[in-house]
Amino acid sequence: MTNEHRFTFGLWTVGNPGRDPFGDPTRAPLDPARSLHKLAELGAWGVSLHDNDLVPWGTSAAEHDRIVARFKSGLEQTGLGVGMATTNLFGHPAFKDGAFTSNDRGVRRAAVGKAMRSIDLGAELGAEVYVFWGGREGTEAGVAKDPRDALERYREAIDVLSDYVVDQGYRLRFALEPKPNEPRGDIFLPTVGHALHFITMLKRPEMVGLNPEVAHETMAGLSFVHAIGQALWAGKLFHIDLNAQRTGRYDQDFRFGAEDLKEAFLLVRLLERAGYDGPVHFDAHAYRNEDAEGVWDFAAGCMRTYAALAEKAEQFDALPEVQDALARASAGELGEPTTSGGDEADALKAEVEDLDALASRGYFNENLDQLVVDVLLGLR
Amino acid sequence: MTNEHRFTFGLWTVGNPGRDPFGDPTRAPLDPARSLHKLAELGAWGVSLHDNDLVPWGTSAAEHDRIVARFKSGLEQTGLGVGMATTNLFGHPAFKDGAFTSNDRGVRRAAVGKAMRSIDLGAELGAEVYVFWGGREGTEAGVAKDPRDALERYREAIDVLSDYVVDQGYRLRFALEPKPNEPRGDIFLPTVGHALHFITMLKRPEMVGLNPEVAHETMAGLSFVHAIGQALWAGKLFHIDLNAQRTGRYDQDFRFGAEDLKEAFLLVRLLERAGYDGPVHFDAHAYRNEDAEGVWDFAAGCMRTYAALAEKAEQFDALPEVQDALARASAGELGEPTTSGGDEADALKAEVEDLDALASRGYFNENLDQLVVDVLLGLR
Amino acid sequence: MTNEHRFTFGLWTVGNPGRDPFGDPTRAPLDPARSLHKLAELGAWGVSLHDNDLVPWGTSAAEHDRIVARFKSGLEQTGLGVGMATTNLFGHPAFKDGAFTSNDRGVRRAAVGKAMRSIDLGAELGAEVYVFWGGREGTEAGVAKDPRDALERYREAIDVLSDYVVDQGYRLRFALEPKPNEPRGDIFLPTVGHALHFITMLKRPEMVGLNPEVAHETMAGLSFVHAIGQALWAGKLFHIDLNAQRTGRYDQDFRFGAEDLKEAFLLVRLLERAGYDGPVHFDAHAYRNEDAEGVWDFAAGCMRTYAALAEKAEQFDALPEVQDALARASAGELGEPTTSGGDEADALKAEVEDLDALASRGYFNENLDQLVVDVLLGLR
Amino acid sequence: MTNEHRFTFGLWTVGNPGRDPFGDPTRAPLDPARSLHKLAELGAWGVSLHDNDLVPWGTSAAEHDRIVARFKSGLEQTGLGVGMATTNLFGHPAFKDGAFTSNDRGVRRAAVGKAMRSIDLGAELGAEVYVFWGGREGTEAGVAKDPRDALERYREAIDVLSDYVVDQGYRLRFALEPKPNEPRGDIFLPTVGHALHFITMLKRPEMVGLNPEVAHETMAGLSFVHAIGQALWAGKLFHIDLNAQRTGRYDQDFRFGAEDLKEAFLLVRLLERAGYDGPVHFDAHAYRNEDAEGVWDFAAGCMRTYAALAEKAEQFDALPEVQDALARASAGELGEPTTSGGDEADALKAEVEDLDALASRGYFNENLDQLVVDVLLGLR
Repeated sequence: MTNEHRFTFGLWTVGNPGRDPFGDPTRAPLDPARSLHKLAELGAWGVSLHDNDLVPWGTSAAEHDRIVARFKSGLEQTGLGVGMATTNLFGHPAFKDGAFTSNDRGVRRAAVGKAMRSIDLGAELGAEVYVFWGGREGTEAGVAKDPRDALERYREAIDVLSDYVVDQGYRLRFALEPKPNEPRGDIFLPTVGHALHFITMLKRPEMVGLNPEVAHETMAGLSFVHAIGQALWAGKLFHIDLNAQRTGRYDQDFRFGAEDLKEAFLLVRLLERAGYDGPVHFDAHAYRNEDAEGVWDFAAGCMRTYAALAEKAEQFDALPEVQDALARASAGELGEPTTSGGDEADALKAEVEDLDALASRGYFNENLDQLVVDVLLGLR
Repeated sequence: MTNEHRFTFGLWTVGNPGRDPFGDPTRAPLDPARSLHKLAELGAWGVSLHDNDLVPWGTSAAEHDRIVARFKSGLEQTGLGVGMATTNLFGHPAFKDGAFTSNDRGVRRAAVGKAMRSIDLGAELGAEVYVFWGGREGTEAGVAKDPRDALERYREAIDVLSDYVVDQGYRLRFALEPKPNEPRGDIFLPTVGHALHFITMLKRPEMVGLNPEVAHETMAGLSFVHAIGQALWAGKLFHIDLNAQRTGRYDQDFRFGAEDLKEAFLLVRLLERAGYDGPVHFDAHAYRNEDAEGVWDFAAGCMRTYAALAEKAEQFDALPEVQDALARASAGELGEPTTSGGDEADALKAEVEDLDALASRGYFNENLDQLVVDVLLGLR
Repeated sequence: MTNEHRFTFGLWTVGNPGRDPFGDPTRAPLDPARSLHKLAELGAWGVSLHDNDLVPWGTSAAEHDRIVARFKSGLEQTGLGVGMATTNLFGHPAFKDGAFTSNDRGVRRAAVGKAMRSIDLGAELGAEVYVFWGGREGTEAGVAKDPRDALERYREAIDVLSDYVVDQGYRLRFALEPKPNEPRGDIFLPTVGHALHFITMLKRPEMVGLNPEVAHETMAGLSFVHAIGQALWAGKLFHIDLNAQRTGRYDQDFRFGAEDLKEAFLLVRLLERAGYDGPVHFDAHAYRNEDAEGVWDFAAGCMRTYAALAEKAEQFDALPEVQDALARASAGELGEPTTSGGDEADALKAEVEDLDALASRGYFNENLDQLVVDVLLGLR
Repeated sequence: MTNEHRFTFGLWTVGNPGRDPFGDPTRAPLDPARSLHKLAELGAWGVSLHDNDLVPWGTSAAEHDRIVARFKSGLEQTGLGVGMATTNLFGHPAFKDGAFTSNDRGVRRAAVGKAMRSIDLGAELGAEVYVFWGGREGTEAGVAKDPRDALERYREAIDVLSDYVVDQGYRLRFALEPKPNEPRGDIFLPTVGHALHFITMLKRPEMVGLNPEVAHETMAGLSFVHAIGQALWAGKLFHIDLNAQRTGRYDQDFRFGAEDLKEAFLLVRLLERAGYDGPVHFDAHAYRNEDAEGVWDFAAGCMRTYAALAEKAEQFDALPEVQDALARASAGELGEPTTSGGDEADALKAEVEDLDALASRGYFNENLDQLVVDVLLGLR
């Protein structure tokens, strides 16, 4: 059942050891090879990774090769694919003031270089998409960075790296991952909207799209479904990070579906209707009070809930009472052009007089929304 | 002192009668002519207005002309300008499901027609900028609107209206005003970022920019200074709405500077350094427990605080200890290109080895941020 | 099915005309008598009301009596009860600076007097509980009120009113309804916790409990289930206001279950397990884009979802896999005393050495939480 | 100048190494002895500590004694006092499901034992106040803990520990520190209000008060000034944690005054007017992009801003225009009883008729709030 969805998990997700700002790890490190086998067994399609998830910082060149070879052999054995790869530009203390937007030019240069090395690794592993999450690109003391300069440097880095991909003949596409804050006070490109706009300012906008994450938009209380709608509308949904999050809190990265089932349903329905065919990637981790076994409960739950919601979305749209309710809400009519394309100014101005009459109709949204609840709860 | 800043106030701001979702008005309606005289006396440069602030819904054509003539004569007498004009597409019950994105095509057509009529009025009054705040363009029951359809209809409306402006030979530019929610559960184009991207999808992107509002980004906890930075970077800051707001609450529209003085300072500093020369518009209102007199305390306070912060921004940048601190933070270095423009891939990759050494330096942001506090508090 | 739950609706909820801060009403006023009949038909147990929901401000004494008599006859005809009554101390402009905590002593006295009159009405209508929602008791300009004075005045008002109830021989109990903000910038007694503490400072704490509301705790991002837990633990859950809300937004008062189904499930489960037998009161209203018919879709949906969740709660607790998972999470062990009651200091100190060994176990919360999702989605 | 305020810093604050959920430490560990000398030099009155800030987990008894002796000698040399002590019940992985409210009884017992050991240490060091921050007392999977059981266990632990203090003859008072979330999804006793109420349920309420923290109330968007007002009103402000935070985000612990200067001013004014004489404790840390030197910029800034705001509070209250404005706002009138104490029911009911007349006055809050801004900015 689950294979049709191309489910993927980051190595860092199932491998998350449960460390947090106030406490030590609660789980032992997990060998990436073990993750491959366990994920394959659970029905996942593939994995994703940061450079340093696989090859720890400071590894020698020889050891690097040995690790990569072993991992490739694990991929082969399990039949798993690599959905995306990315660079860790946030963990090393040198990135404390930013990576592509550090005030220190030396750090910026090293960050671009680290991304290049990591792109090489991603290409070698056959990743489709290369993600950039600029977790350190931001400020606490706003006066320390002119945001216009920071955006200019951000653009420069992405432009240089897209040139690099083209020069190397890699087939990778880039996907930017916005986030409003944490670990920085305020992060540049805080939402799907800001990142979509940023792409239009790039040298090679056609090879850059988005990797939106449920938790990141939800932290700011924005509608993730609307955000995905705008990304799809722009043809820029290259990848997606699924998890769960409560608004106005630290980055929680809970199991997909663990919060806000209605929004999760609307999201899955939109993805399925839009024919999204990229990896369905879970960027989440098990609760910290889980042991090693609980990690696999977590992973199985993510996939189980997605698959169930996809089925419910189909069921929902097939229900006659839903079709009726959508019609009474004029939902389909929103797909029709408002104007004829000709010069209608006089006609449109005259139709203002119709407003009082147009005010009386209802849109039956309570009924429609209750039908969603009914289907979610299995009442229909 | 204040004239240099081109301060403007909406007729609806000083005229706000203090009605809220739980209570009746606390102040009598204010004659727009009275507002003109009082604002001129306080040192404002101009006013702004919705069509129905001046000409109430349902006014006859003859009465319309009389009202407009009287208002123009008031402008002439006081020497005030019209900073911007806009259409009320949210108050009439017909817009309850949206205006440009209502599911009802008739409502959408009437909304476009109302905007055309209102554009005519704005042009007649000499407005520089025409604002669109899509307060009703959104959902509570997300299933009722495919967000892709909604954005398509939104685009169509702005495209038709920009054609109309060109056809009429008006010199108006458009400015979109994003907002995340309220009065709808989720509003389309929720942030500066989403709106900046939307503009790039339009037929005439060059004539459309933004009217960002402090309260709207702040409701979602996003950095308004970073948002304005991105708008300036894109050349799209056509107008601005200043007020004050606490994060995660209903739309408060407090007096400028009433909340978050440091962010207000950073904002004013950015606007002044960027040479923003549009209207400095206050979209705010007096606390509901004020009487008619308190409204003018409110208006004077907005201008007083902006002017004081502008002076402090100049003073801040002239302080030798600030210049030192900015240098120690490498703030200026962020303005320098990271790369040389040539093929540096190998060099950049090699510089990754420098990261451990680069980690040791500090950025002196505590010192720098405390200097902001010191200057704000008049300690330097 | 629904009658077992004693569902009640405020007259102001089904009668909500759809006015909001940005728009005019979208529905005509609803005759309270009509509401009684329609609610009875839908299976509600009763209604609740503010004084001015039934008797508008400014009504003559004669008209007052006529209205009340007609309403009582409506109650008799329909068999509906009155779950609670309350005073409108927020709508009249005189309350713009507060009611019991207005800086103006005259307003405070009139507010107490209005509450007395309204208590008389509530007693006449047979209300079990009398609610106080202090929507105007707060500040925007914090400097205008010393919070200690405000709490002292608040206490005085409740003490005087509880004396009044005793003097009159009424059998009413009071229930305080906390809210963090809106319509004031910050409201006193912002959460269930603050109100529970306030009760302990009163003259007659035994006759005062709480009326917590889903939306109000959720606005501040607090766990409503934990809040209800603390209120039940203290024996203070006298009444409850159910609806739905997204965190960090304006007060939405959506249909119960329209947001956060998991939290709604946990809430219903807790209420049912605790044997809560007060009114199950919906303080919510139909979306503004509904017409008169949609109001009843809204009301039916509230009851339908509550009843469904109550059934699912029973089903959940009966599942063997749930009982297993609860056992593996040691959920029942939390009910056992930690200590023996004797002097165990030395033993307890010695057991610190066990911590390293205690760290290895898991709590199976992913499994347990997924079982909640499974039951909600009808997968088990 | 600063000594009058009894400023204290936690060892963990200046010693914070800059580790966060996404990155490694950026600063080397700091020897507590070094902190003592540096803080004394900067003008602090004292320090505070968790048991494991001074004596790392796993230290042998002999080493424990050596460390403590050396620390006491450092206190003597510097003349610094110990403002408060507390137990680390959150860092060790055994506390992953809670400490006093872990579902595992063995963990709960060890947590009580660890607190006893740590209380012994606090008493030895002469701490005035013993703080409990229950950072792990909460849930992500709400179904795993009945909140009533959790509160019962929490109460048991505090009761047992207060008995222990009395039995040992220590002069310590307890102070509970509420927090809404992080590191748990939802923490029990999430706000000042919940904790104030909890204290009233204890066996020895007189020896238990609060340690409220700016960041914790602010995370939930609650007014910290109102919260402190309620704590002072109840006589329960035993200690305070000062820092800065933006609403709706991860726990930031910024330098005091770095965010929301107006709220900081109102807080300092309230503390000074109330004669709060406990430690003025900074629970904050330097930005992660600071090096070792920047830590002391951070510490100096906290004290500098507090002292400056305390002076401004005095200046504010002495200004004739402020006294006028407070009078026009009837601020003092809020301190007067509303009622006479006699039976006034008839009179109070009659005064309801005055409401229409009472509605017309203003409260001059814009003027008053602008005076706060003026004084903050040094404009008066």
